[in-house]
Amino acid sequence: MTTALPLNQISATDAAAAIAAGRLTSEALVASCLERIRAREDAVQAWARVDPDLALAQARSRDRESPRSRLHGIPVGIKDVIDTCDLPTEYGSPIYRGHQPACDAACVAQVRELGGVMLGKTVSTEFATRHPNKTRNPHDPARTPGGSSSGSAAAVADCMVPIAFGTQTSSSIIRPAAYCGVVGYKPSFGLINRAGLKFLAESLDTIGTLTRCIADAALVVEALAGLPPTPFGEVPRLKPRIGLCRTPYWKQADAATQANLENAARLLAQAGARVTDVDLAGEFGALAETQIAVSSYEFYRALTHERTRFPERISASLTARIAAGGNVTRAQYEAGVTLAERCRQRIDDVLRDHDVLLAPSAPGEAPPLESTGDPIFGLTWTLLQLPCITLPCGKGPRGLPLGVQVIGNRGGDAALFVNAEWMARALAQL
Amino acid sequence: MTTALPLNQISATDAAAAIAAGRLTSEALVASCLERIRAREDAVQAWARVDPDLALAQARSRDRESPRSRLHGIPVGIKDVIDTCDLPTEYGSPIYRGHQPACDAACVAQVRELGGVMLGKTVSTEFATRHPNKTRNPHDPARTPGGSSSGSAAAVADCMVPIAFGTQTSSSIIRPAAYCGVVGYKPSFGLINRAGLKFLAESLDTIGTLTRCIADAALVVEALAGLPPTPFGEVPRLKPRIGLCRTPYWKQADAATQANLENAARLLAQAGARVTDVDLAGEFGALAETQIAVSSYEFYRALTHERTRFPERISASLTARIAAGGNVTRAQYEAGVTLAERCRQRIDDVLRDHDVLLAPSAPGEAPPLESTGDPIFGLTWTLLQLPCITLPCGKGPRGLPLGVQVIGNRGGDAALFVNAEWMARALAQL
Repeated sequence: MTTALPLNQISATDAAAAIAAGRLTSEALVASCLERIRAREDAVQAWARVDPDLALAQARSRDRESPRSRLHGIPVGIKDVIDTCDLPTEYGSPIYRGHQPACDAACVAQVRELGGVMLGKTVSTEFATRHPNKTRNPHDPARTPGGSSSGSAAAVADCMVPIAFGTQTSSSIIRPAAYCGVVGYKPSFGLINRAGLKFLAESLDTIGTLTRCIADAALVVEALAGLPPTPFGEVPRLKPRIGLCRTPYWKQADAATQANLENAARLLAQAGARVTDVDLAGEFGALAETQIAVSSYEFYRALTHERTRFPERISASLTARIAAGGNVTRAQYEAGVTLAERCRQRIDDVLRDHDVLLAPSAPGEAPPLESTGDPIFGLTWTLLQLPCITLPCGKGPRGLPLGVQVIGNRGGDAALFVNAEWMARALAQL
Repeated sequence: MTTALPLNQISATDAAAAIAAGRLTSEALVASCLERIRAREDAVQAWARVDPDLALAQARSRDRESPRSRLHGIPVGIKDVIDTCDLPTEYGSPIYRGHQPACDAACVAQVRELGGVMLGKTVSTEFATRHPNKTRNPHDPARTPGGSSSGSAAAVADCMVPIAFGTQTSSSIIRPAAYCGVVGYKPSFGLINRAGLKFLAESLDTIGTLTRCIADAALVVEALAGLPPTPFGEVPRLKPRIGLCRTPYWKQADAATQANLENAARLLAQAGARVTDVDLAGEFGALAETQIAVSSYEFYRALTHERTRFPERISASLTARIAAGGNVTRAQYEAGVTLAERCRQRIDDVLRDHDVLLAPSAPGEAPPLESTGDPIFGLTWTLLQLPCITLPCGKGPRGLPLGVQVIGNRGGDAALFVNAEWMARALAQL
């Protein structure tokens, strides 16, 4: 294959085309990713488990076949809260050290069926909550990659793999993607099947992707959910109607993030988008605290086995959050679910006049390793079940990546992809 | 303890009161259930796995403590699609023979935390689908107990255990409960946490209970979900407004079932209920086929590991249904989900003038063992996420149990309990 880029840096979309055309083997692609991991894993620590021989054996098998799909021969990283039948799955917790599931999660089995290569397990925080694990930000080893999809974001950012699955209950795809400078995609709730995912909060948990371009995110979800091909050919003709949504949490974003988002909005308007302000007033302002009540009521129950049998092997911070979850009453939970349902209807009206909303992805650039950062800018959209993409855009005061978040209509993932792609091209000037 | 009934026949509610009062030990109760299993299991085959020593050890531990909840010391059967950390969980499939999960499902861990005793695993059909397993109807060994919660319904009906968990995606609690002559309760969608349930169709799968009285069903869900105590004291003062809903599938009910339901409606009116006809016209009539499209799109994906790696160990009937699921397009699936959401709004209007609906539980009495019966009378209510209870009521032409189904408002499980209890008392004359 002739390309200016090393194999580990090319997109899944380009790699798949090259594999289908006979210009690239899966084995060469996977070997290049493994080589990058060997070179960089000590510094980044993105992987919970990689078995190079297992990965190469899958790649060679795929090279003996005709392409099964656009995922054929493509290596994929699997967040370690998603079960795999041939590599241990530890859910980011010492309670599950060496735990080997019997069965692949649905999304993993689908990747294999579609010809993809399960490259390895990426580091998750403890049960996909906020307590940090070992991964470092590839741009600065003293900084967090964000969480909970820490390893997936860092591995993709460091070009160890073109695609990794993440999961989001609060802001666990969007935040680490922004901190690491990659594309994070949280689909509409339920788009990727969740069988075999270790549940944290079942009414919120959403499987999505970390990639280096939007087309790669679309490739995965089209294949798994059976969506029609995203019409990226329409992108040059779009004139997105963008709602600039500073959100009720605007003051929690630092000055660089505020300036970066407003600068992005100006640039998008200059490039031909219609940009208008959208104010999430009234009861929308209660959605972040509602997400916390709903999710903690649920994870108190989902983690009953662990919290009753292994309390001493749960981090102090998660222990405190579990205790708070046990204090959420059923009445509070139901009030939260009711508010969320009402706001889902109302946001449909808000979005009727906009193709997408534009909002912060995180309060700033990646903070130090002691935390995984603040999920505040993800809570509302996750509770509303809306599809979200974060695009790398600009830098913070330390030169670390910033992101901007693009939010679409529920079920309108294809429209989100093309509008976000238009925006990514316009922002490439930034 | 002084009671007219053998211990294995008393309700969980009565047993819990006796345990709390020091008049009964959990050990004696569990021993009585185990004795019944020893006597009858050859004929009924309700259990996938029971470890008597393990059950008795739990009971003795509980007897050394003060009661933790109203489930303290009570034995509970666990459908074998729900993970247990100390007994194998085989999902009703030869693919998982001897499979030992690492972790209890949330509902199992909650039962233990609340002081309950995990008595054993009850037989499920293959992955909780329709393909029969070994269990027989306790009322007639040549007849099915129904499915997919076959063992749970048969074990409770045969007084081997007072409470068993079941799951419902189509009619997998209501149908077997009706065939076996017990109370089946499918909660509002999401009321019992599903972490550790083997998913079939994640937007529909609902954990519920099989019991011999409504109070026992309420006891379980109150404890697990943190619901306030159901106000059963109000029952004598109720005047239920009942919507008699023959459903669009009325012609699929046999003559005995039709006569039984109409007779029940008359008796309830005589007892003081307001009974009016409710016609589920228009697009409600498409919900049954919609449930099939939605569920099969989902189980095609959820069972990817099994269908790609072990096709020869999946039954012919499930193989055919999986193939059909693979042909459901994303557009068909989304149309189904949209219709279901619209009908959930509309049924709220229908139910505004009624406390409950009354409908058939199954087309007739239990058919021969070759099938688990037709789920048609469960599909609509499951897709609508409404709480449902089937009450034993009347007999079919062969003298086997019939049931009537009582359907409540979404989230109105407590109101369903009290209205269904009023109806059960009125129907006790039948």
